[in-house]
Amino acid sequence: MRISLKETADYLLNNDKYLLLCHISPDGDTVGSALALARALMAKGKSVQVKCGDKFTKDFDFMFEGLEFPEFEPEHIVAVDVADPKLLGDKYMGLYGDKVELCIDHHASNVLYSDMVCIEPDSASAAEIVYLIIRMIDAEITPIIASCLFTGVSTDTGCFRFSNTTVRTFQIAARLAELGADTYNIIQTFFETKTKTYAALERLALDSMRFYFSDKCAIICITQDMYAKTGSNETETTMLANLPRMVEGVLVGIMMRELKDGSFKVSVRTHGDIDASAICKRLGGGGHMGAAACTINATKQQAINLLLKEIRPEIDAIKLD
Amino acid sequence: MRISLKETADYLLNNDKYLLLCHISPDGDTVGSALALARALMAKGKSVQVKCGDKFTKDFDFMFEGLEFPEFEPEHIVAVDVADPKLLGDKYMGLYGDKVELCIDHHASNVLYSDMVCIEPDSASAAEIVYLIIRMIDAEITPIIASCLFTGVSTDTGCFRFSNTTVRTFQIAARLAELGADTYNIIQTFFETKTKTYAALERLALDSMRFYFSDKCAIICITQDMYAKTGSNETETTMLANLPRMVEGVLVGIMMRELKDGSFKVSVRTHGDIDASAICKRLGGGGHMGAAACTINATKQQAINLLLKEIRPEIDAIKLD
Repeated sequence: MRISLKETADYLLNNDKYLLLCHISPDGDTVGSALALARALMAKGKSVQVKCGDKFTKDFDFMFEGLEFPEFEPEHIVAVDVADPKLLGDKYMGLYGDKVELCIDHHASNVLYSDMVCIEPDSASAAEIVYLIIRMIDAEITPIIASCLFTGVSTDTGCFRFSNTTVRTFQIAARLAELGADTYNIIQTFFETKTKTYAALERLALDSMRFYFSDKCAIICITQDMYAKTGSNETETTMLANLPRMVEGVLVGIMMRELKDGSFKVSVRTHGDIDASAICKRLGGGGHMGAAACTINATKQQAINLLLKEIRPEIDAIKLD
Repeated sequence: MRISLKETADYLLNNDKYLLLCHISPDGDTVGSALALARALMAKGKSVQVKCGDKFTKDFDFMFEGLEFPEFEPEHIVAVDVADPKLLGDKYMGLYGDKVELCIDHHASNVLYSDMVCIEPDSASAAEIVYLIIRMIDAEITPIIASCLFTGVSTDTGCFRFSNTTVRTFQIAARLAELGADTYNIIQTFFETKTKTYAALERLALDSMRFYFSDKCAIICITQDMYAKTGSNETETTMLANLPRMVEGVLVGIMMRELKDGSFKVSVRTHGDIDASAICKRLGGGGHMGAAACTINATKQQAINLLLKEIRPEIDAIKLD
């Protein structure tokens, strides 16, 4: 059942003992949104826990500062920015996959697995929705809550660069800055800092870039061998996914990264009217219009061929316009 | 004489026949600010011309759409975002260098060459100041004016990433988005698009990166030879200047680029308390706290040595903290 922001706020105010769940490979939006909501609910006297099937990386440490999650048996399970119970990870999918009461999300591809879903597919981030919900439950947006939300708002828009960025995104970002969000350090952490291992991996990634369809499609491929050579790992590939699409004229930018089992995780970024989500859906994945992902269990060349086969009609359709 | 925003607005309303001047190597802030102000003044019935010592590149074409500058003998010369008359270029410095009546600027290093100066060194861009002035002269901020201003606001903050970005920057950006600024296309043009020649140059630039002072300083060096190899040129180096500082642990990031006469134009980007402007000033240049520039007439190795000599005490001072 789809419920409104107001109904979501009422539900959160009328219940207690929440377990908030983040998606695996946790990013700034799922963690920032969950921690902002957790802090706001705690300020309203609620007992809250936050869990994730993967470890939170150190970049998110600031969000947990001064926070202690009490021990209790959760009575209400709320998933934040989790489009599919599979994204809870094996452990939490097993424990809670069919028990999620409320899902707060912005993915059009949400599989509607929860009893209630508060979803705004036009929202650039879950954090924008959580900002509105926190306003509605009348909790104070403290500087740390503002920082958690700003992390979600900025990371899910590539720091205001992706096409999902709206007027409301800028308005909420400005409001969060006014409320004391540490905008500079958040942006430095998530966008302006490259580890030396990342910088080395980026060079190899750029070297691997190949062009197709009269340079309208560009593909980079990160292999396990590259991680070994640079001392890097898959957690450092997030920013690489945007590089192919940045080259002038490229409408479909692809990052393939080899998993340990030899299969490929594929991130698709598109410009204009090309629907990344449609391409990935046909390959068993999903996502948004401009950014989507899927996994292909095949050799590198087979995976590239499969991708090109799905991309060709999308590029051909643009040519006809 | 320093004058306030209000006095600047009054001066602009009480006079006519303006020539607005941009700085050479025109960037989004000088062009966006000048064009926004020109359009606002024209809407108030004033005759306005805009000139620059260098050609405007095609990225700025949208700002001139539907605009015709009338022929007239200018009576009042206004420089926008021009910290030094030298930055007008030889021709306009000769013609107008000592005749600039008003300068609207945000560079702390402004040499105060004009009769009147409206300067806010804490403003991230001249565009923020021009936004406030346009509000004060009570001209409508049309979508195209909003786009011109948003170009200045976003480009001079590295798309909200530099330390000069303030709460007011986000507020003005949000307001400009509300007023119809084409935020997505502006950001795509100035931040998310790499020409193929740029992408090739970037790879060579990354290859040239060398580290000093226990990796607290990183230097990349762009040579004329690299332009020849990649088909690129110096107009494509702007974004490269930020790359060295992005590496984790780097406090001073330097881009040197070889000019045709063999000398080096040096861009310095710093983190935290290290004053880029102080480093460059000692080498005959200037700029802001976090971003400054100078020119060194020496061989590559001599130039590096000169830079390291000026940077060492700044890094040593940080160690003592």
